[in-house]
Amino acid sequence: MDLKRIAKDTAQVLSSYLTYQALQTVLGQLREMDPPQAYWLNAFSSRANIQDGEAYVQALLRERPDLAYRIMTVRQHIADEVAEFLPEMVCTGIQQANMEHRRQHLERITQLSLSDSQLARESEDDSDSGTEPNLDNLSN
Amino acid sequence: MDLKRIAKDTAQVLSSYLTYQALQTVLGQLREMDPPQAYWLNAFSSRANIQDGEAYVQALLRERPDLAYRIMTVRQHIADEVAEFLPEMVCTGIQQANMEHRRQHLERITQLSLSDSQLARESEDDSDSGTEPNLDNLSN
Repeated sequence: MDLKRIAKDTAQVLSSYLTYQALQTVLGQLREMDPPQAYWLNAFSSRANIQDGEAYVQALLRERPDLAYRIMTVRQHIADEVAEFLPEMVCTGIQQANMEHRRQHLERITQLSLSDSQLARESEDDSDSGTEPNLDNLSN
Repeated sequence: MDLKRIAKDTAQVLSSYLTYQALQTVLGQLREMDPPQAYWLNAFSSRANIQDGEAYVQALLRERPDLAYRIMTVRQHIADEVAEFLPEMVCTGIQQANMEHRRQHLERITQLSLSDSQLARESEDDSDSGTEPNLDNLSN
């Protein structure tokens, strides 16, 4: 397992995601203060590839440097405020999610084996009570 | 800006991404040790939605609990090893990327204004040297 490469890739994905969150923040601000700009930025962002944060900023810099600078400032701010809390949130989150998955899985297989044994008991009961009643007798 | 919500969403995206990395790790191991299993897991993962890590694990638990447990263990391990380095990597990464974007942008607008002034000087030179030479003279 190449943990160094995984850490590097994860940091890049994270950085692109924070760029996306910065865009959403700026869009929200513009929708209130300057709807035509919000409209333009929204249209641009649905054309440009926001999956790659750096390519997105680069493309925006060419068309609207003022908005690109604003998004760069906001993403730096978000990173500075949010990043320090992420390790604990992610580690605890995964730990709890794993526990919950294991619990649900155990519950499911226990229910399955319970209903299996119930089925087994019911079929035993059936055999105790003999064969099924003969419906032909009803017509008599 | 709702930093609390952003932190929560980011942690979830991160957790899903680490699930994806855990899947890649397990796939790599299986390709070496047990290719048919790797083939099955790869086919399953292209059907299931890996974008949502928890939904993916839940779906895999129903079909192949052994593989789901393995991926859960690996993602916990990756998170424990990698998460603590992410804040600095992301903050420094964004800072450096922002600086680099600003530098490139400044360079571009400086070159543009340089070539503008060059164009202006050239057109001045042209007007100094008078009108274009009359090509009719060449035929003489």
